[in-house]
Amino acid sequence: MERHFRAIKHEIRVVGVDDAAFLPKSNMQVPVVGVVFRGGNRLEGVMCTQITVDGIDATQNIASMIKTSPHYGQLRVIMLDGVTFGGFNIVDVTALYEETNLPIIVVAREKPDFARIQQALSKLPQSDWRWRTIQKAGEILQVPSRRESERIYIQIVGISLADARKVIKLTSTYSSIPEPLRVAHMIASGISSIIIHRR
Amino acid sequence: MERHFRAIKHEIRVVGVDDAAFLPKSNMQVPVVGVVFRGGNRLEGVMCTQITVDGIDATQNIASMIKTSPHYGQLRVIMLDGVTFGGFNIVDVTALYEETNLPIIVVAREKPDFARIQQALSKLPQSDWRWRTIQKAGEILQVPSRRESERIYIQIVGISLADARKVIKLTSTYSSIPEPLRVAHMIASGISSIIIHRR
Repeated sequence: MERHFRAIKHEIRVVGVDDAAFLPKSNMQVPVVGVVFRGGNRLEGVMCTQITVDGIDATQNIASMIKTSPHYGQLRVIMLDGVTFGGFNIVDVTALYEETNLPIIVVAREKPDFARIQQALSKLPQSDWRWRTIQKAGEILQVPSRRESERIYIQIVGISLADARKVIKLTSTYSSIPEPLRVAHMIASGISSIIIHRR
Repeated sequence: MERHFRAIKHEIRVVGVDDAAFLPKSNMQVPVVGVVFRGGNRLEGVMCTQITVDGIDATQNIASMIKTSPHYGQLRVIMLDGVTFGGFNIVDVTALYEETNLPIIVVAREKPDFARIQQALSKLPQSDWRWRTIQKAGEILQVPSRRESERIYIQIVGISLADARKVIKLTSTYSSIPEPLRVAHMIASGISSIIIHRR
């Protein structure tokens, strides 16, 4: 099932989701930040949740963060910085799509190294489930970003490749990474110091 | 002493500082967020510190946050959302200016009600010191923001009124509040939920 956009509006609302730094194997809660952009320029909102390092609550907590946000009704697309959050707390993109009813674009600067990921996963509980969940994000596609020469890797759920390419291009204002993700990463990094220090 | 800008560059780096929500009289630490903008559009960085509710550490902690940031060398102006942070933890703008060597623009949407503030202060320890510190920010000036018809209130330290007006106009992209402060407020609000929940 794919949502068909009649047109990708210049002011389309996109939420970008990224996680903060954390201490590995710490059993701590990791902040996850969602940043709402209107098109490629205007920051309209910031939301936050927490997930467990190497836990299994990323999908539910991110879905809940988005659905309880006052921006939910305006949102048209979710962008994720990969599908692994807080270590190997995997986002089930199919479930997130069904739960939020929003199409998803998973973005990566580098092509994910699945052999290495599968290896790392094998040491965790529910490793089979985690591995199957990672695979749900589907084929990795290389697409142009701001310019034809700048390429990023995406996986898509509920949106056509043509539409996803338009959304990427429209929101990649200052780098090859779309603004909602670039800024979510900056905020998540910025708050990491006080979060880790606080514990 | 006033810094004289030869020109206010279109890409001037400004850090806007605002605090998160907190539980009054809680003796808790309140996150304070600094957001670096390049001109009125591009978010370049997010920094964070903590201060004590109704404490006296706002000046030192904000100065230290700014000076230890990788953006410090690029910064030209500090914008504060008022001088009271985390309740009545007052920023000594003279000390902040001397410590950071950066001019300061204190911004308020509404004209501060000093009678009410002085009354509230009187119940706190070191109330005389707090009141004198508030007064250090000097005269309140009404200036135009994005448009001539949109007015905000500012206090300035180490910068001429003419230069401060240019910086305000240049950075007020989407509302009467300059972007570094509008976004700092959004981030501080966004992270409040997990910070308060965490304790």
